[in-house]
Amino acid sequence: MSLDTASMVRMANAVRALSMDAVQAANSGHPGMPMGMADVATVLWGEYLKHDPKAPDWADRDRFVLSAGHGSMLIYSLLHLAGYAAPTMEDIRNFRQLGSPCAGHPENFLLDGVECTTGPLGQGLAMAVGMAIAERSLNATFGNDLVDHRTWVIAGDGCLMEGINHEAIGLAGHLKLGRMIVLWDDNNITIDGSTDLSTSENIKARYEATGWHVVECDGHDFGDIRRALDEALSSERPSLVACKTVIGKGSPNKQGTSATHGAPLGADEIAAARAELGWDAAPFEIPSEVLDDWRSTAQRGASARSEWNGRIENHGDRPEFERRMAGDLPDDFSLDSYIASLMAEPQKVATRKASEMALGHINEMLPETIGGSADLTGSNNTKAGGIGPFTADDRSGRYIYYGIREFGMAAAMNGMALHGGVIPYGGTFLVFTDYCRAAIRLSALQQTRAIYVMTHDSIGLGEDGPTHQPIEHVQSLRMIPNLLVMRPADTVETAECWEIALREKTRPTVLALTRQNLPQVRTDASVTGQSAKGAYRLKSAENARKVILIATGSEVHLALECAAELEKQGVGADVVSMVCTQLFDEQDDAYKADLLPDVSPSEVLRVSIEAGTTFGWDRYTMTNGLRIGIDRFGASAPAEDLFAKFGLTVDAIVPQMMNKLNA
Amino acid sequence: MSLDTASMVRMANAVRALSMDAVQAANSGHPGMPMGMADVATVLWGEYLKHDPKAPDWADRDRFVLSAGHGSMLIYSLLHLAGYAAPTMEDIRNFRQLGSPCAGHPENFLLDGVECTTGPLGQGLAMAVGMAIAERSLNATFGNDLVDHRTWVIAGDGCLMEGINHEAIGLAGHLKLGRMIVLWDDNNITIDGSTDLSTSENIKARYEATGWHVVECDGHDFGDIRRALDEALSSERPSLVACKTVIGKGSPNKQGTSATHGAPLGADEIAAARAELGWDAAPFEIPSEVLDDWRSTAQRGASARSEWNGRIENHGDRPEFERRMAGDLPDDFSLDSYIASLMAEPQKVATRKASEMALGHINEMLPETIGGSADLTGSNNTKAGGIGPFTADDRSGRYIYYGIREFGMAAAMNGMALHGGVIPYGGTFLVFTDYCRAAIRLSALQQTRAIYVMTHDSIGLGEDGPTHQPIEHVQSLRMIPNLLVMRPADTVETAECWEIALREKTRPTVLALTRQNLPQVRTDASVTGQSAKGAYRLKSAENARKVILIATGSEVHLALECAAELEKQGVGADVVSMVCTQLFDEQDDAYKADLLPDVSPSEVLRVSIEAGTTFGWDRYTMTNGLRIGIDRFGASAPAEDLFAKFGLTVDAIVPQMMNKLNA
Repeated sequence: MSLDTASMVRMANAVRALSMDAVQAANSGHPGMPMGMADVATVLWGEYLKHDPKAPDWADRDRFVLSAGHGSMLIYSLLHLAGYAAPTMEDIRNFRQLGSPCAGHPENFLLDGVECTTGPLGQGLAMAVGMAIAERSLNATFGNDLVDHRTWVIAGDGCLMEGINHEAIGLAGHLKLGRMIVLWDDNNITIDGSTDLSTSENIKARYEATGWHVVECDGHDFGDIRRALDEALSSERPSLVACKTVIGKGSPNKQGTSATHGAPLGADEIAAARAELGWDAAPFEIPSEVLDDWRSTAQRGASARSEWNGRIENHGDRPEFERRMAGDLPDDFSLDSYIASLMAEPQKVATRKASEMALGHINEMLPETIGGSADLTGSNNTKAGGIGPFTADDRSGRYIYYGIREFGMAAAMNGMALHGGVIPYGGTFLVFTDYCRAAIRLSALQQTRAIYVMTHDSIGLGEDGPTHQPIEHVQSLRMIPNLLVMRPADTVETAECWEIALREKTRPTVLALTRQNLPQVRTDASVTGQSAKGAYRLKSAENARKVILIATGSEVHLALECAAELEKQGVGADVVSMVCTQLFDEQDDAYKADLLPDVSPSEVLRVSIEAGTTFGWDRYTMTNGLRIGIDRFGASAPAEDLFAKFGLTVDAIVPQMMNKLNA
Repeated sequence: MSLDTASMVRMANAVRALSMDAVQAANSGHPGMPMGMADVATVLWGEYLKHDPKAPDWADRDRFVLSAGHGSMLIYSLLHLAGYAAPTMEDIRNFRQLGSPCAGHPENFLLDGVECTTGPLGQGLAMAVGMAIAERSLNATFGNDLVDHRTWVIAGDGCLMEGINHEAIGLAGHLKLGRMIVLWDDNNITIDGSTDLSTSENIKARYEATGWHVVECDGHDFGDIRRALDEALSSERPSLVACKTVIGKGSPNKQGTSATHGAPLGADEIAAARAELGWDAAPFEIPSEVLDDWRSTAQRGASARSEWNGRIENHGDRPEFERRMAGDLPDDFSLDSYIASLMAEPQKVATRKASEMALGHINEMLPETIGGSADLTGSNNTKAGGIGPFTADDRSGRYIYYGIREFGMAAAMNGMALHGGVIPYGGTFLVFTDYCRAAIRLSALQQTRAIYVMTHDSIGLGEDGPTHQPIEHVQSLRMIPNLLVMRPADTVETAECWEIALREKTRPTVLALTRQNLPQVRTDASVTGQSAKGAYRLKSAENARKVILIATGSEVHLALECAAELEKQGVGADVVSMVCTQLFDEQDDAYKADLLPDVSPSEVLRVSIEAGTTFGWDRYTMTNGLRIGIDRFGASAPAEDLFAKFGLTVDAIVPQMMNKLNA
């Protein structure tokens, strides 16, 4: 059912009015995009988008992503007009003010109906790829009755110019994600001015070259928009709908220029726009007939949800589907017996291999995992447990060959996690977190359960040299709020870390794993679950304690060897394995004080050992402690030579400690 | 002059033999690419590349970039065979061993003829864009007599799949960089296997859509390679030469498979390859006639250089050209008089504005600067001093509209700096260092003078919210070795920082600048050059010193206000402006001890104030000091409200200090 054109015009103008008024009130924001895309968005939300404002968390809703997140007033307007409980008009009045859910950019944790946080350009569209993957994956398991929805994106020129766009559409085109439709706000304007300033690209040809279906429309002609969307719906390939629009449409003197992009229109121009649009309602008031029209569109989604409720009610898969959408692990999930087997038969393997071993069990027990790697499957050891590839022809696969697309992979993982029903993990070399750091940050901000399997985590990777050797990476990731960074020391800790990461529903995890083999440091089956405390005492001083060695990952066994040498010399030394600093920081004071007692360095010297930057380790060693690490770029050589070169050996470390003790 | 085909075959096989033997000896490395591209590289280096092995730093040489840096044995073989002083055969024997310049990936600081460090995929090609920009820019100034060369790239599927490829070729296509030619090793293989696993893209169509000229050839047919290169030479657009190759060509049982990509072939297969290739020389021995053929190709470049030497000898622009290629600033360059004017008339402006003011002077005095922004020109304040745009039609411009391409911009800046003769600077929001961090790291590793103008450096940007507010960014950048991070507090410090950055020939700089206005804290014209020490005492305690406040950038004036309040309460407080921690760390002990005396906190409390993570500030406050900052994501609201919310006010900070003092 379509509303008549006059109604549609008013509905779209309601979006324009709210957008320009809210930006004006805040004296900050971006009116141009919402005004330019108001007509397209009105058709999409009014007639196509499958959603029910009364049930924003309905599992089978279409996902809508405003990739051009700076145009946030578009989605705030749509949510309000369509009848979501929030934002209220008061929230919109307080656009960009402290405490309003109508933040400068849309935040998934502030409003239902905002499927993901956008603003960092290009990432919304790339997350949508992950949502579309999750949808097809769940569809393969649960069928059309339960899972049958689309992913819609509104994106601007910025989203398309960013490098991640190439990765995202390459992946979507290859995987033939036909239920993903991108509405491109083709307005020829960026912040700096005309797109001619910086690009000469034929975007439609590029999308076609990448396996997409492309259709165009006049973004201000409702009929033409409908025709284009219908064409997009009929394609088996993902679709780009190039919507030719005028930025700031409705602002008589500024429309079509970058002046409308990122600044309020000003009171005079808003008055002129009201006249132009024939909109005479006061700011933040929506005429009742317009609101009624908008609210009437909700019936479509409500009916669909009612039918879906009928289908799921007695569906045999209902408990499993609901468990997965709730993000709960199966009640009987546990790695305890696997860990017990490790205790019984200690193994010297790389932690990347230990991760593969753990994944073998995890992937068998948890059908919701979807793994992958950015073209380093054999190096990241991410394919385990017999899972096969997720492809255009086989949606039942649970392994994604992401290609050489680290950023696209990480963003897709965010999209999958946000969609729900699946738990994504994916790998690359730790040093290449630099390629996807912006997405890892969004994992943390959005509180998604994305698990990053980052191998080759130090100079221990050896010959590939400084471009491939992380130095600052582990510490710099530890700085990102709400991100768990885990650097396990052996098979047992690796398994424990995996279990923690899987149980963290609102925090992403980076697992930093070695290329090189490591001896198993945990063999006491009576002591379990230690990694959950973030740090724990792995070895207690035998002589009177004079030293506490704090190490992570591949340096834990080195710390044990140093401690053994100290004990030989009559110096008692604890060894603390600090698997995850963030989890340790969350422990109670008594636990922390027991592990790292607050006594002067002359009594007990604290020493950190990590094969990376020493920057920031003061917080655990205290100022007068000793920090062993690498504060320069690495080098190309066999790993053993590098550990020697950079002083990460017993012979190099123990004398430094003795000097400090004797000072 | 072309050598006969039999000679060319032997020359190419010399590359193959060295590559497979070196990888075998190291038991580590990537033989597949060098063997697959040996024929193409032999034509390029033997017949096209303008270079003189006896003068690797000849300013008008062609630049050659091995973007697929894992195939490093290709360039080591070529350099050795062509007659460069290094690598020697001994160096090649020691491929990937400690101390050999033949590192796992090519490093520009280890070997002449390696124009840039490659290995992180996609960045080599993107740096080549910058080299091609620098060439055209210098050509516009110095003419064909002095500057008339090309930029050649060998790239693999990985380089083309990375997101940065989209940004790089978009920029190159838009700017019509016709003197850039990319030889794509089109072998259908990635690490994980066939490219079919992860991509369905029509790469040639994508390049054409982006404004490139595309030509194909059989990468194992010398005549066809020549034809393709000749076609590329004749285009005014940048060219992609799709070279159809067989990875590992010459290895009879493994060629054409990913087995040759990243592992030694093994002794048996190497023997089989020797038989296949008819190569019977011992490992690391090159038959003299093959070496003679290779060395004979050097004549072409030697002649060209000799002619060029004739042209420059009495050229009127010679001194200026040589100054610029040496990277020296003009003898009379100084911002002293500008800084004196600031002292005379203090101004309250944002440091991004202060940067624009400084740039106004710099761009007038230094014709070698090339500025730009990733579509935030008006926000980063990077266009100053009357410079106009560098475009396809006007190469005399010195401002680049990079578009929404942060990573591509940073890589292009590296390429420009590596080319020499120009000093690139470019801007985006500080939070988007996450988008280009991998290139910033390569600036540091490669020791390039790239200057990053990163504005909106804290919650002070206000309403845009957490996606746009740096929290961990300043500290995490400070962790990168050889990178200067400067956070100036006012107009004077900003000018000082610019001058330091410009004079640093082998270190890149990140300038972290505010959106919001800041009062000028430096007004004493008798004290100059303070920022060069990294930190300095801006205010001395009036009462007996009990507190040292250490602040940066926008928090320096807050520290001054806190100090004033402390003094009112009878507590003496120094204020240290820590403009650049790295430069401070390099000062002598006496200076450091004077500023931050090593006394117990009960005597003097050290307090850091920075509107970002407190992680790592222990190193300056000591463990028992106080660290004021923000250890969570930001929020959307006017800046003033956010500073209050996050406790960055005099009222919030002073009581914490008093409590600590009275504890």
